[in-house]
Amino acid sequence: MNYEHLQTQLFNRLEQREQDMIDLRRHMHEYPEISFEEEKTAQYIEEFYKGKDVSIKTNVGCRGIVVDIKGAKPGPTIALRADFDALPIQEETNLPFASKHPGIMHSCGHDAHTAYLLVLADVLLELKDELPGTIRIIHQPAEEKPPGGAIGMIQDGCLEGVDKVLGSHILNNVEVGKVMSASGPIMTGNSTFFITMYGKGGHGSMPHDANDTIVAGAHFVTAVQTIVSRRMNPLEASALTIGSFDAAGTTNIIKDSIKIAGDIRVMSDENRYKIEKHFRELLDGICQGFGITYDLEFTHGYPVLVNDKATTDQTLSAIQNAQIDEVTHVFYCPPFPASEDFSYYAQEKPSCFFYVGAKLANQPYYPHHHPKFDFDEKSLLISAKTMGSAALNHLFT
Amino acid sequence: MNYEHLQTQLFNRLEQREQDMIDLRRHMHEYPEISFEEEKTAQYIEEFYKGKDVSIKTNVGCRGIVVDIKGAKPGPTIALRADFDALPIQEETNLPFASKHPGIMHSCGHDAHTAYLLVLADVLLELKDELPGTIRIIHQPAEEKPPGGAIGMIQDGCLEGVDKVLGSHILNNVEVGKVMSASGPIMTGNSTFFITMYGKGGHGSMPHDANDTIVAGAHFVTAVQTIVSRRMNPLEASALTIGSFDAAGTTNIIKDSIKIAGDIRVMSDENRYKIEKHFRELLDGICQGFGITYDLEFTHGYPVLVNDKATTDQTLSAIQNAQIDEVTHVFYCPPFPASEDFSYYAQEKPSCFFYVGAKLANQPYYPHHHPKFDFDEKSLLISAKTMGSAALNHLFT
Amino acid sequence: MNYEHLQTQLFNRLEQREQDMIDLRRHMHEYPEISFEEEKTAQYIEEFYKGKDVSIKTNVGCRGIVVDIKGAKPGPTIALRADFDALPIQEETNLPFASKHPGIMHSCGHDAHTAYLLVLADVLLELKDELPGTIRIIHQPAEEKPPGGAIGMIQDGCLEGVDKVLGSHILNNVEVGKVMSASGPIMTGNSTFFITMYGKGGHGSMPHDANDTIVAGAHFVTAVQTIVSRRMNPLEASALTIGSFDAAGTTNIIKDSIKIAGDIRVMSDENRYKIEKHFRELLDGICQGFGITYDLEFTHGYPVLVNDKATTDQTLSAIQNAQIDEVTHVFYCPPFPASEDFSYYAQEKPSCFFYVGAKLANQPYYPHHHPKFDFDEKSLLISAKTMGSAALNHLFT
Amino acid sequence: MNYEHLQTQLFNRLEQREQDMIDLRRHMHEYPEISFEEEKTAQYIEEFYKGKDVSIKTNVGCRGIVVDIKGAKPGPTIALRADFDALPIQEETNLPFASKHPGIMHSCGHDAHTAYLLVLADVLLELKDELPGTIRIIHQPAEEKPPGGAIGMIQDGCLEGVDKVLGSHILNNVEVGKVMSASGPIMTGNSTFFITMYGKGGHGSMPHDANDTIVAGAHFVTAVQTIVSRRMNPLEASALTIGSFDAAGTTNIIKDSIKIAGDIRVMSDENRYKIEKHFRELLDGICQGFGITYDLEFTHGYPVLVNDKATTDQTLSAIQNAQIDEVTHVFYCPPFPASEDFSYYAQEKPSCFFYVGAKLANQPYYPHHHPKFDFDEKSLLISAKTMGSAALNHLFT
Repeated sequence: MNYEHLQTQLFNRLEQREQDMIDLRRHMHEYPEISFEEEKTAQYIEEFYKGKDVSIKTNVGCRGIVVDIKGAKPGPTIALRADFDALPIQEETNLPFASKHPGIMHSCGHDAHTAYLLVLADVLLELKDELPGTIRIIHQPAEEKPPGGAIGMIQDGCLEGVDKVLGSHILNNVEVGKVMSASGPIMTGNSTFFITMYGKGGHGSMPHDANDTIVAGAHFVTAVQTIVSRRMNPLEASALTIGSFDAAGTTNIIKDSIKIAGDIRVMSDENRYKIEKHFRELLDGICQGFGITYDLEFTHGYPVLVNDKATTDQTLSAIQNAQIDEVTHVFYCPPFPASEDFSYYAQEKPSCFFYVGAKLANQPYYPHHHPKFDFDEKSLLISAKTMGSAALNHLFT
Repeated sequence: MNYEHLQTQLFNRLEQREQDMIDLRRHMHEYPEISFEEEKTAQYIEEFYKGKDVSIKTNVGCRGIVVDIKGAKPGPTIALRADFDALPIQEETNLPFASKHPGIMHSCGHDAHTAYLLVLADVLLELKDELPGTIRIIHQPAEEKPPGGAIGMIQDGCLEGVDKVLGSHILNNVEVGKVMSASGPIMTGNSTFFITMYGKGGHGSMPHDANDTIVAGAHFVTAVQTIVSRRMNPLEASALTIGSFDAAGTTNIIKDSIKIAGDIRVMSDENRYKIEKHFRELLDGICQGFGITYDLEFTHGYPVLVNDKATTDQTLSAIQNAQIDEVTHVFYCPPFPASEDFSYYAQEKPSCFFYVGAKLANQPYYPHHHPKFDFDEKSLLISAKTMGSAALNHLFT
Repeated sequence: MNYEHLQTQLFNRLEQREQDMIDLRRHMHEYPEISFEEEKTAQYIEEFYKGKDVSIKTNVGCRGIVVDIKGAKPGPTIALRADFDALPIQEETNLPFASKHPGIMHSCGHDAHTAYLLVLADVLLELKDELPGTIRIIHQPAEEKPPGGAIGMIQDGCLEGVDKVLGSHILNNVEVGKVMSASGPIMTGNSTFFITMYGKGGHGSMPHDANDTIVAGAHFVTAVQTIVSRRMNPLEASALTIGSFDAAGTTNIIKDSIKIAGDIRVMSDENRYKIEKHFRELLDGICQGFGITYDLEFTHGYPVLVNDKATTDQTLSAIQNAQIDEVTHVFYCPPFPASEDFSYYAQEKPSCFFYVGAKLANQPYYPHHHPKFDFDEKSLLISAKTMGSAALNHLFT
Repeated sequence: MNYEHLQTQLFNRLEQREQDMIDLRRHMHEYPEISFEEEKTAQYIEEFYKGKDVSIKTNVGCRGIVVDIKGAKPGPTIALRADFDALPIQEETNLPFASKHPGIMHSCGHDAHTAYLLVLADVLLELKDELPGTIRIIHQPAEEKPPGGAIGMIQDGCLEGVDKVLGSHILNNVEVGKVMSASGPIMTGNSTFFITMYGKGGHGSMPHDANDTIVAGAHFVTAVQTIVSRRMNPLEASALTIGSFDAAGTTNIIKDSIKIAGDIRVMSDENRYKIEKHFRELLDGICQGFGITYDLEFTHGYPVLVNDKATTDQTLSAIQNAQIDEVTHVFYCPPFPASEDFSYYAQEKPSCFFYVGAKLANQPYYPHHHPKFDFDEKSLLISAKTMGSAALNHLFT
């Protein structure tokens, strides 16, 4: 069976299994588990592979599952990754398959990712006699919560022998039929900070007996703007947000302590450390200047997700050339502000992470992580076909 | 009976009535009522005068009580004022006479003021045949809560025919035996402000789609420092405190609105309006500059309390010359940062407001308005004697 | 003669004329003229074409010269542009051909641009029987001084009938042999601002009688940082510099006026207007807030230079494929912070502006616009060959 | 001769010598010398005393002159001080006796001070048989230039044996006939600062390769406002002025260094050191925060001038009671923002410094230190009479 024939076979079988994907997704949606606590979900995935002719490893990293589908012919090893954790959000969708777990919800689409990848794995398994090389399925827990599940799975060997890694994410703000990616930095690295400043309380009419933390904090907020405006390369996107200035009080009492917290986004790991250095210097200098002491908790989240150029070009070409009926546009997009721990795989192996449109037509829009988040399930088949065609292409070339 | 003789009589009778003052104070302390709701307290005061040879008016302003003690001889009318409202504070003193009203407490000493003045009034009434002129007792409600009780009593005529007004306040951070005052501005005028700033929320990595209220608010806090540092006369004390910057949030979400509140102190009414003008201009300019809308609630509290020089000099001299056994020091003190609605009387008539030390020796100190506030009851007799000798002196000269 | 043959002819003839390029460049270097005053330079260029079989227009725009070399065969019209103005800088190079005009110097390389293009034009003229289409040579004055010479030449019709425009610039900080460009925004658009703030002077000990412009200006400088940090898309490079805060004075006198000036860089015309809007709002708001009046002179300089993708890809491919001996690397580079009025041509026609390395090996480096600026004259032949091969390619396809 | 008689004698003789005062003043005005270079002026003063029955010391401190007029009777020693240096200002008055020394001018009235004190000394000398005690005349150089002439004269013993010190200053913005002073702090202490900040220059479009000193400086200017607004007691006047922000440059070049200078005023020596501490901390913290290095020259000028209460009350009473025809008002005034090295005498001995009105009626007003400064010479006689009557009073009581 040649490559084109194989691809046709793949697409046909995926089309026949579309309802399976939907059922799997809805089941997972009903029983979500939060990051690092996905016990039942991991069992459910393991169960899916039971009795199948695959090599399976469980408890990789934390609850990761790695499945190898070995083709009959020699060839490279291409890893396909999907995440399966949910979020600590109380669902408000009123869907018939809404979460049965109070306060937990698949409101980012990881149910979709895992559902399509299970079916795609099944179909690829059926075709394995025709495959030149190995497809490694990586079912990853805990994407939503730094340090994330990827890093543990990698330490536990999930990338050993892997040549390339592919991943995809549905986006419910992009029309169904659109598929997109970009080479280079495609998702930001982020860091978070939590500051407590300690001054000295007092009465507003006797400021000299106090040391006003709100005033010192305000000067820090204004000064920290200069990191982006003056210390970072304007051509290398960076952003620093003070999301919280927690200093509620009464009118005439000078607060003795306040809390400030925020988030930093960069597009290179070098800038991550550059911005941290300037941040720490400014905070320390301003606090010293105002006679304020402070605690700082500064945490690096996921690194920048950098798509490999060759892998990305090939992936988008493969999808484009596959002439998938349901895919209307394949294109290069600008980087995204969000962060993903797929970035750890991309640090190790040539990788491509791409997006699949999943927008619900004619319905109110609720973003990812919203209690009313929902998406068009047509994106399941599209995810499977695009990932499938890309995987085949990377096996064959 | 000459002046010295009369004064001796006064002191003797007050000494005999010291326990009455204490009892009255403790009763009031057990049954405190908050500002503008002092129904029972007003009845209790009214009851005190029942059957006595005084002219009494009730419900003056709100629940104010005005009592005239007419001396047998011609002379001036000297008003003596005490306040009788309590605070919305849950008492934590464990005193045997602690508040029986949950959440309400006399934690500023108004129980002391009223108690001593009732007994002083009683003794002056006994001596009225010797008095040249009239003593007007002003029992004022609602000092703690702007707009305060004074303004209504004045509008209702409580100062008609009055030549001078005297008032006193115990201070539990000043040693027993000390009596002090100053001429000119002796307590600040204050104003309060409550701002809500409205920008546009968004994700920290896409600041250009949002409008960051924390950043605008921080620039306002830094800019508003220049009002005191550059716009006000350094020789005329002023203070502006941001006591609340209410903007708690999450790290990576740009807040769409924040609340800022604070307090302003000045030492002249002219400066009150000057500082308000600069405040409004700066807030408006900064918000416009940052594309932020806002609500501002700016309220003038009590005006500056300005003691009349002649009245104050005479009052302190009278107290000094009275050689009161319990009084160890009579002196001129610097102004106080707190505010008082006695200031309204002082705007109308030559007035003197003075302080009487009430510090508890060898005990932990809790400031006025604290749930564990307490004071030395020796200050009751001292208050009565100092106010009494001052009142006599002003009647006689 | 086929395309490859023609290109070989072109290169051979250019190689033979290398000394001519050097001589022309050195002559121009000796007699520089500043922007909008290039009378003799324009005559010198006009003289060069005298008696040749070209169509020449002079005084296009201001002193622009447009020369059409009409090929014998039908085809497109490709414009090649070089600038010929110098800078108001006193040369300090000690070169034998250093400027003979005091205070004026070719310290940016426009002498090189014009010299190579004159010889290239000459050689193309010799080959015109083989050319399919027309080469239009645009000799442009006044690139260094906004509003620049390009805009006038365009208004005067220099792009009529033109299909594409090509331009190049030597860079003396890039090694000889390197040729580079990029599609999309390749040079920034810039704007400049000059502010005068008017407050009220006074003595430092009586700030309330003055209105301190240094303090207001400092608040403006801190606030204006938020435009880049919070109002602009982090993925679209922008920069705002306060280059001048002109407020020298004595220690204790509050300055009644100050001057602030600076420069803005953006990578899209949309951002140019967005940043201007935020700038004006902030300045106005801050000044109103501080009770300061101001004058603002805000001027847009050259727009963003946006290379057409197809034209740029073709240009770099053509240069790469021409296998020019002296060219070692042809590559895509990141955008440049500087600005160029070639951007006006690129607004009208599909255009490509590319850079040619001209670094002097083993010599101290002085940047463009420095009194000791110099470059490697090998870049003349390279400029001519790269531009020549690109021009041929665009004629033939 | 009793006290009243003596005073009458004094006034009569001073009235007769009024023209002498004017002549002396005009001569000094014609030949001004700047601080620490008053060679001829000192000789002129010394000459005045030649042959008189006084004890004279010259070169006290620098060029100070101390003259003792010993009364025939026992009594205290009262020092009277006048300064005699001029300013580096080019006179623009067109007075017939304008300065003959280019660039030097008596534009503060020290010519007046010395002129009246010479004549007063002469008259007191005539009356010395009647004087109980000693009058010490202190002719002081270099008042205008810190560290000033007073400190050296004191170190050289000019206050040995002295009981009290009196000094006066004419004020040309106060009506002739007014005499005023205050007890306590009457003139500010001041300090000056000169900062140079060093960052790193660069091009405005590449801020990350530079370190912007203007931005750091602006943040310092905004932060330093908080010293007055939050760190100092609002009841104790203080002022901090940035008088110079010396950072002129071009629009698009980031400045590598800037200079900031300013002045601090306080009303107590304690605050002088408190404000310096906060200033140094803030500067250091802000510079560290921004990665900026700096030089700071921080200099304390003259200390706060604190008038002794008893000496001041007595002085003003004496002047009031002397019923001087030319004196219309004697009163207590608020403190003055300016500084004076008379403060050093007042640190050593009970002292009083008072002001004498010298305003020119119906003429344009030019302040002290202005090139067109002038004053009403009637203030000479008034200065002599007020100082004379005060001196007598202090001798007799």
